[in-house]
Amino acid sequence: MGNHGYKGNIFPVNPKYEEIEGIKCYPNTASIPSEIDVILVAVPEQSVISVLEEAGKAKVKSAIIYSAGFSEIGEEGKRKQQKIKQIAGESGMLICGPNCVGIIGFHHKIAMSFSQFLDASKLIPGNIAFISQSGALGGALLNRIQDQSIGISYFISTGNEAVLESSDFMEYLLNEPSTTVMMALIEGIKDAEKFLRVADLAIRKKKPIVVMKVGKTESGGKAASSHTGSMTGSDRVYDAVFKQKGILRVDEIDDLYLTASALAKCRRPRGNRVGIITTTGGGGVILTDKLVEMGMDIPALSPDTAAKLKETKASFGIVSNPLDLTAQVVNDPLLFPKSIESFVQDENLDIIVVALAMVGGEKSRERASYIIQASHATEKPIVTWWASGSLSTPGMKMLEESQVPLFTSPHRAVEALNALVQYSQFLRNYNDEGKPTISSSVDNPLKNMTFLSTSYGSLTEDEGREILSYYGIPIPKGGVSKNLEEAKKIASKLGYPLVLKIVSPQIKHKTEAGGVKLNIRNEEQMVGAYQDIMRSTMNYKPDAEVKGVLVQEMVPPGKEVIVGMTLDPQFGPMVMFGLGGIFVEILKDFSLRHAPLRERDAWEMVKEIKGYKILEGFRGEKQADLGAIVSTLLTLSRMAIDLKNVFSEVDINPLVVYPDRGGVKAVDCLFIRKREADKEVVG
Amino acid sequence: MGNHGYKGNIFPVNPKYEEIEGIKCYPNTASIPSEIDVILVAVPEQSVISVLEEAGKAKVKSAIIYSAGFSEIGEEGKRKQQKIKQIAGESGMLICGPNCVGIIGFHHKIAMSFSQFLDASKLIPGNIAFISQSGALGGALLNRIQDQSIGISYFISTGNEAVLESSDFMEYLLNEPSTTVMMALIEGIKDAEKFLRVADLAIRKKKPIVVMKVGKTESGGKAASSHTGSMTGSDRVYDAVFKQKGILRVDEIDDLYLTASALAKCRRPRGNRVGIITTTGGGGVILTDKLVEMGMDIPALSPDTAAKLKETKASFGIVSNPLDLTAQVVNDPLLFPKSIESFVQDENLDIIVVALAMVGGEKSRERASYIIQASHATEKPIVTWWASGSLSTPGMKMLEESQVPLFTSPHRAVEALNALVQYSQFLRNYNDEGKPTISSSVDNPLKNMTFLSTSYGSLTEDEGREILSYYGIPIPKGGVSKNLEEAKKIASKLGYPLVLKIVSPQIKHKTEAGGVKLNIRNEEQMVGAYQDIMRSTMNYKPDAEVKGVLVQEMVPPGKEVIVGMTLDPQFGPMVMFGLGGIFVEILKDFSLRHAPLRERDAWEMVKEIKGYKILEGFRGEKQADLGAIVSTLLTLSRMAIDLKNVFSEVDINPLVVYPDRGGVKAVDCLFIRKREADKEVVG
Repeated sequence: MGNHGYKGNIFPVNPKYEEIEGIKCYPNTASIPSEIDVILVAVPEQSVISVLEEAGKAKVKSAIIYSAGFSEIGEEGKRKQQKIKQIAGESGMLICGPNCVGIIGFHHKIAMSFSQFLDASKLIPGNIAFISQSGALGGALLNRIQDQSIGISYFISTGNEAVLESSDFMEYLLNEPSTTVMMALIEGIKDAEKFLRVADLAIRKKKPIVVMKVGKTESGGKAASSHTGSMTGSDRVYDAVFKQKGILRVDEIDDLYLTASALAKCRRPRGNRVGIITTTGGGGVILTDKLVEMGMDIPALSPDTAAKLKETKASFGIVSNPLDLTAQVVNDPLLFPKSIESFVQDENLDIIVVALAMVGGEKSRERASYIIQASHATEKPIVTWWASGSLSTPGMKMLEESQVPLFTSPHRAVEALNALVQYSQFLRNYNDEGKPTISSSVDNPLKNMTFLSTSYGSLTEDEGREILSYYGIPIPKGGVSKNLEEAKKIASKLGYPLVLKIVSPQIKHKTEAGGVKLNIRNEEQMVGAYQDIMRSTMNYKPDAEVKGVLVQEMVPPGKEVIVGMTLDPQFGPMVMFGLGGIFVEILKDFSLRHAPLRERDAWEMVKEIKGYKILEGFRGEKQADLGAIVSTLLTLSRMAIDLKNVFSEVDINPLVVYPDRGGVKAVDCLFIRKREADKEVVG
Repeated sequence: MGNHGYKGNIFPVNPKYEEIEGIKCYPNTASIPSEIDVILVAVPEQSVISVLEEAGKAKVKSAIIYSAGFSEIGEEGKRKQQKIKQIAGESGMLICGPNCVGIIGFHHKIAMSFSQFLDASKLIPGNIAFISQSGALGGALLNRIQDQSIGISYFISTGNEAVLESSDFMEYLLNEPSTTVMMALIEGIKDAEKFLRVADLAIRKKKPIVVMKVGKTESGGKAASSHTGSMTGSDRVYDAVFKQKGILRVDEIDDLYLTASALAKCRRPRGNRVGIITTTGGGGVILTDKLVEMGMDIPALSPDTAAKLKETKASFGIVSNPLDLTAQVVNDPLLFPKSIESFVQDENLDIIVVALAMVGGEKSRERASYIIQASHATEKPIVTWWASGSLSTPGMKMLEESQVPLFTSPHRAVEALNALVQYSQFLRNYNDEGKPTISSSVDNPLKNMTFLSTSYGSLTEDEGREILSYYGIPIPKGGVSKNLEEAKKIASKLGYPLVLKIVSPQIKHKTEAGGVKLNIRNEEQMVGAYQDIMRSTMNYKPDAEVKGVLVQEMVPPGKEVIVGMTLDPQFGPMVMFGLGGIFVEILKDFSLRHAPLRERDAWEMVKEIKGYKILEGFRGEKQADLGAIVSTLLTLSRMAIDLKNVFSEVDINPLVVYPDRGGVKAVDCLFIRKREADKEVVG
């Protein structure tokens, strides 16, 4: 621990030794003649509890437990880990681990870790905090990260997170001035509410969080009866929450630290317009491919820039973006800095990427220094992609140690740029207006719906319709008939064409049961349809309790979408949106957000599905009433918060959407109760 | 050029010098007293032609032209380049370039290049040939590649490809024994037929070709009137051709050489079942995520392996795949080699991935040597992912110099593994049976279709139907009526329900023109529909020549798909398949192959679209007649070859597919003629 220059007191504890590496050793924590900030627990697993208990008595403030053999090995380990939690609760001790490789403070040279990474010759301090649930992988990456001169403020291996979890450390780091960017390698989040709170704080503090969340393919295995329920696997939920909270999710390990480094080094770009300067035409094409794929803009240069560049060198060839300097740059060395300067001044560009190929030795230092100089004179991010290898080390090292991010892969460069752009955009669009409205209390009409506290399983459609009505979601006209005569009466009031649907708490999938008849055009057809329904449903489920038949107006056709709510076991109420039928079921083309939604979230949900073009109108069709969808999603969000203790899943399927400002109609709905919480209603 | 040990003769040519670097210099090529294998042309662009002419006269066998200033700078440059081509034709000289950085032969130390890469201390020979259209980028990558001890046979910078193009070099390399794998960085292919021929030869020689094709986002800008035509951008065409020919396309630069290296080092795996041994649990999860995403299998270990591993170490914890060795591996160093050995012997596994974390110094060498030893004793590919950095250099270097591929990114490792698996699978499935049948001559019935040589623009539907009939593609019954009376007669033969469609060479989009009436149930409705059609189409296009009205049986509903043919400007006839409507138009969910198709190609086309599940049957529906689709695609392929000089686009939209063995029906078709070649019919 002292190897890296830590100057504070260290007290080894071991009953067998008098001293360790020349430092006096104590038989136990109690015998240390000093207040203890933190103990590092590296004893066999069976001694951990007694060491902690002793430390608790000695008023030790915190502990880092390296020892393994807890929740990661199964049930017995979980019980022992519970005991750690209990000691923390009783003693007030802050505990990191168990099964972690510890914590390293790079600024204060506090190396409280047993990671072999500490064999590195020096610790490079910086502004990025690195939180890793995986200790072994975290330590390995630290080595790679610091090889590239990327500075770190803290490395925190959280291990099994018996007490302190990733979010706790993030919260600390948000208030810790040396950290400006956080990156986290996690498999999951324990306390979702805490995480959401910390994420909100991170937005206010403008400190970006880059996350690599692994374990995408875990099969949730959750049985779900509604579309919404079955469509929302936990990884999609994480994706949705991250997006909503401006957390930058990356898919590859290299993107984790390279993106964090770009965020730590660069100012926030004003937009997504990228200028490319390259000494290799092919490199310019590769960058263009990837930038376009990520939705970035590669605009034309301003006439000013073009004129300046043409003047710089008459035989320049083609002046465009990407700007290919060709071998010309060898004959005219000033072409390089002049081009960068013109790009920096071009008001059409927000970001500049410089692509370098095979430039070695002293020449590589010259190129690097031109780039670094230019970066000092502008607020625009300048990033570099250098395609060659060891021959360019001199220049690469200069860039690594500068404020200019260096990438050896164009793909990693563009991923990081995209994160920069996304984060800046998120902060720009984020404001406290447009905050979601939540019904803080549920008023009488909802309380009067006795079925909310008495029935079980799923609601019948007429009950669901009552809730939708209360929330102001448009539904087709209609009513429940107890017999054919009543049905005829309702029909004569509504007029034809009509729809008949069975109403039975035991029949959730009405169409499957033969309990739905569409497009009934007159009384004669209705009589037949009524009898058919009765016969089919009787065959389908002879013991079903039939409450009647819903007689409903047949609404005109429109675009069919699904909106829904599901309770995620971790994050709670999630709102879902997608196009009807195969889009959601087969193509998994749906969007998801955590409730409560802001209006912006709802608009994003509508626009981010692949099938959005269908709603926009194609082949000369009119645009669907997008505003009405957004308002339905916001209402559903409110409903989700109000009723999250009553229902685990809500589907409105289909919600028919009409063109222009024609609104929506919830043509069918399914409300599925939570088993455990049948009687609670919020409010 | 002599720096790297080349022992042959070098003759500098320059009229101004007597000698260069101690070697006698000649005023011109003619004065060299020896047969010349190759001249390196590094003169200003304006002297290139005269140098070549002189060389031609001196019977020089080949030339590499470094000089730039040709087709890359515009029209004038293109003309000059044409002259180079002409000299090559007249003299028989093989010419590489212009605007290239040259050729390097790594085994013979022939460094015929001006790339600064040659500053490297040594050339590492190997089995991978690297062909790059971009010289600057190619040279830069060579430096990076050789830093990782990846050996190269030849580096060939093809430049503007005035004469020799990438395919020519590939053809040479396929017959060159030191090269076993080729990788190519290309923006495009000049001679598509030559490329296809070389690709076939590569399959026979079992030499894999890894390609990074850049320039994905070029906007084809091709106006197309059919669905098939508008859906097939040139990058999708490249994708299709590569897939069909077993060419491994990569998207990232690092994948290019890492995949090539894995292919050069590893034997072909027997399947896609991967065993993961890891010292970091998190690393195992990351590999799993990516392997599952790529469609690889991570099977359970065989009972034998599980038993052996449990015996090896009782306190092992969980024995599973991925196998997490945990910190246990430090206490029991033999656990590592024993685990690898058990995995190698497990008949459930085809490939083994070993993930290493923070292991430094001598320990890293120990781990590496265990892996290398294991790899000698098995035919199964073993690959490694090492997450740490410079502290593990000793072990990493050992792996780099061994036959075990080393990756520092799990994503790159899995991409390379996937390529290994795909290529092996391709070779296994490839055989000369199932070769496509092509009508070598078109016989009389087709010749009798006078409209093939007389009409212009697009065919009318009845003409299209005649072609479909000839090829045996099922169409609905029907006939063209010249007037209402004829229509009634045809109707009475066919029976109701019926469809009426306008027949006019000037009306391509019949529905838009109001020229289609569906579901006509009786004669009365037909009379009205007939008159409606006449009125609407008259309004739509008053000068349209109306040849009549097609009276057609209304076929029962089924799944609607689109099959089509389009002529790619480079590759020629391509066959396309997709689901009807929004799937193709909005989601771009279609598959494409170059004609002629093999039966396997057709099956792949059907199965690779995202909407395949819809054809398979979902929600209890029956499977659509996939065999009938495949056979239609094969017929279309035959038709594409026969008629590629007549039609530029053919659409069958919709082709209605019935369940089980119910077959298909081509309900509508559109044949669009090539403008230039209206009168040629193959055969």
